[in-house]
Amino acid sequence: MAEDLWKKEYDFAVAVARKAGAVIREAGEKEIKVCTKSSTVDLVTKTDERVEKIIIGSLKEEFGEGTHCFIGEESVAKGEPCILTDKPTWIIDPVDGTTNFVHGFPFVAVSIAFAVNKELEFGVVYSCLEDKMYKARRGKGAFCDDDRITVSDVEEIKKSIIISEHGTDRSPEKVKKIFSTMQKILCIPVHGLRGSGTAATNMCLVACGAVEAFFEIGIHCWDIAAGAVIVKEAGGILLDVDGMSIRSVNCVAINQALCFGETPLLKNRLCLTIQGGPFDLMSRRMVSANNKKIADRIIKEIEIFPAERDDAPIQKK
Amino acid sequence: MAEDLWKKEYDFAVAVARKAGAVIREAGEKEIKVCTKSSTVDLVTKTDERVEKIIIGSLKEEFGEGTHCFIGEESVAKGEPCILTDKPTWIIDPVDGTTNFVHGFPFVAVSIAFAVNKELEFGVVYSCLEDKMYKARRGKGAFCDDDRITVSDVEEIKKSIIISEHGTDRSPEKVKKIFSTMQKILCIPVHGLRGSGTAATNMCLVACGAVEAFFEIGIHCWDIAAGAVIVKEAGGILLDVDGMSIRSVNCVAINQALCFGETPLLKNRLCLTIQGGPFDLMSRRMVSANNKKIADRIIKEIEIFPAERDDAPIQKK
Repeated sequence: MAEDLWKKEYDFAVAVARKAGAVIREAGEKEIKVCTKSSTVDLVTKTDERVEKIIIGSLKEEFGEGTHCFIGEESVAKGEPCILTDKPTWIIDPVDGTTNFVHGFPFVAVSIAFAVNKELEFGVVYSCLEDKMYKARRGKGAFCDDDRITVSDVEEIKKSIIISEHGTDRSPEKVKKIFSTMQKILCIPVHGLRGSGTAATNMCLVACGAVEAFFEIGIHCWDIAAGAVIVKEAGGILLDVDGMSIRSVNCVAINQALCFGETPLLKNRLCLTIQGGPFDLMSRRMVSANNKKIADRIIKEIEIFPAERDDAPIQKK
Repeated sequence: MAEDLWKKEYDFAVAVARKAGAVIREAGEKEIKVCTKSSTVDLVTKTDERVEKIIIGSLKEEFGEGTHCFIGEESVAKGEPCILTDKPTWIIDPVDGTTNFVHGFPFVAVSIAFAVNKELEFGVVYSCLEDKMYKARRGKGAFCDDDRITVSDVEEIKKSIIISEHGTDRSPEKVKKIFSTMQKILCIPVHGLRGSGTAATNMCLVACGAVEAFFEIGIHCWDIAAGAVIVKEAGGILLDVDGMSIRSVNCVAINQALCFGETPLLKNRLCLTIQGGPFDLMSRRMVSANNKKIADRIIKEIEIFPAERDDAPIQKK
């Protein structure tokens, strides 16, 4: 009989996510001490750090310190490397939606993914205030609690809801591009734009068909790794918002024009060549959608801005 | 012993909201037939109409046809008047968040308010997918289920989350003002912007302290009447986003400049005089906030656009 590979790790991840979620819920009922990271709106709390320690501690205890690798949001913030190797690797966001957590806004998620040979094997997103456990293993479908979930069957962008976030970077040129993109998408027109305040939950909302697509530039691998498996197993699609590397081979100058102050004329002429690239967990620019048609239509409207890769060499030390 | 005035109506409203929510939940599990109203993104379903009939039917049966008046979203859409008189009046949105309902996005609310002598006596918002019953009577506090709720105690706008909506109007000049306002508020900076897709739920999120403020131009009285009581009883504040009538007495020309293509210079010079007006249920422009300081700060950034009053004379007939 074939071994049910990574089943033990998967079951353990579900259990540890539930345990972590309970800690978050309990902490949310007490006074929350808030610190800031990259800016006054990039928040971190003692709970983020504590929950990451609980998760990684439990995993190390269960699976041995040396054999598995760990990429955790708070560990990386403290200078740990963020490199995906072929080794079995856990990718963890202990509290996705820290701002929501601080305010008591009802979407806060624990996100745990597991990759081997750089391929994501499973993902678990526990939306702990809603008490919903989203989970998926490669090739085995996606679930919310015990119910199988699938993406929406909407084909027309005009009948879609698109979800995205403003992020925590408030530099004027980025904010301008984010709003410009959202405005163009709204005016396609689509049924609506939403934002839950957590990327992991946004991806689960794609996976269960509540929205047709989620895109964001600036997200990190720990925000989307678990959600990526869940979206894919729910029948959805993942792309890099930018096929730039492909496009730039053809015409560097025009692609630069597209990225930096393009004219509508250029964009219209080139619309057939504007397309997403293959999903890249570390590229920090992703669109997840119910189907390729919707994803491609959104990518056409996205104004790209630079975001340093998660696995870029660390400059800080 | 003093009579507990409107207690019977209040209890009945809670019960009928719960019943209506169950109908909505059940309908959401079946195929949803969607029609459009003012535009391709302004949706209405058979459920909206059916639930309004159930609510108004139940209320008429209980309280008599002649003594109480009714303002219901779907009845008004069909040409019924939308006038608040001194008579006991029920103000009803059977399905607030129809787009969410159609997509299965998790915020859909039944909103029922009751006014006498043009004063709101109570409000009930049943967020039926979350199964949360928000409710408040004038002078008696606000509740979510059995728990007393209060607004956030955040004083600094920079530590706030602001919630708003893009609405269903896609006319370019309105959309531009909506996005421009959101961008300016985000860059104050605030912790974040959110949008649940329903005004009634947004107001409850203010009331329970999950966000500091909700504002929107273009909402209708049935979207906000119940929420208004809940926010107020939770310790919050309600204002019209525009104190235009006060301002225009002072300087018509400058106020026109403020409303139609203002320059930052003019606005900065005038910032002390830019303020909200008294809350007006029918004016279609509202800010609800945890305190006046936050409300005033937001109002400073809002780019106002015209919205015809809910009680404007009907032209359609």
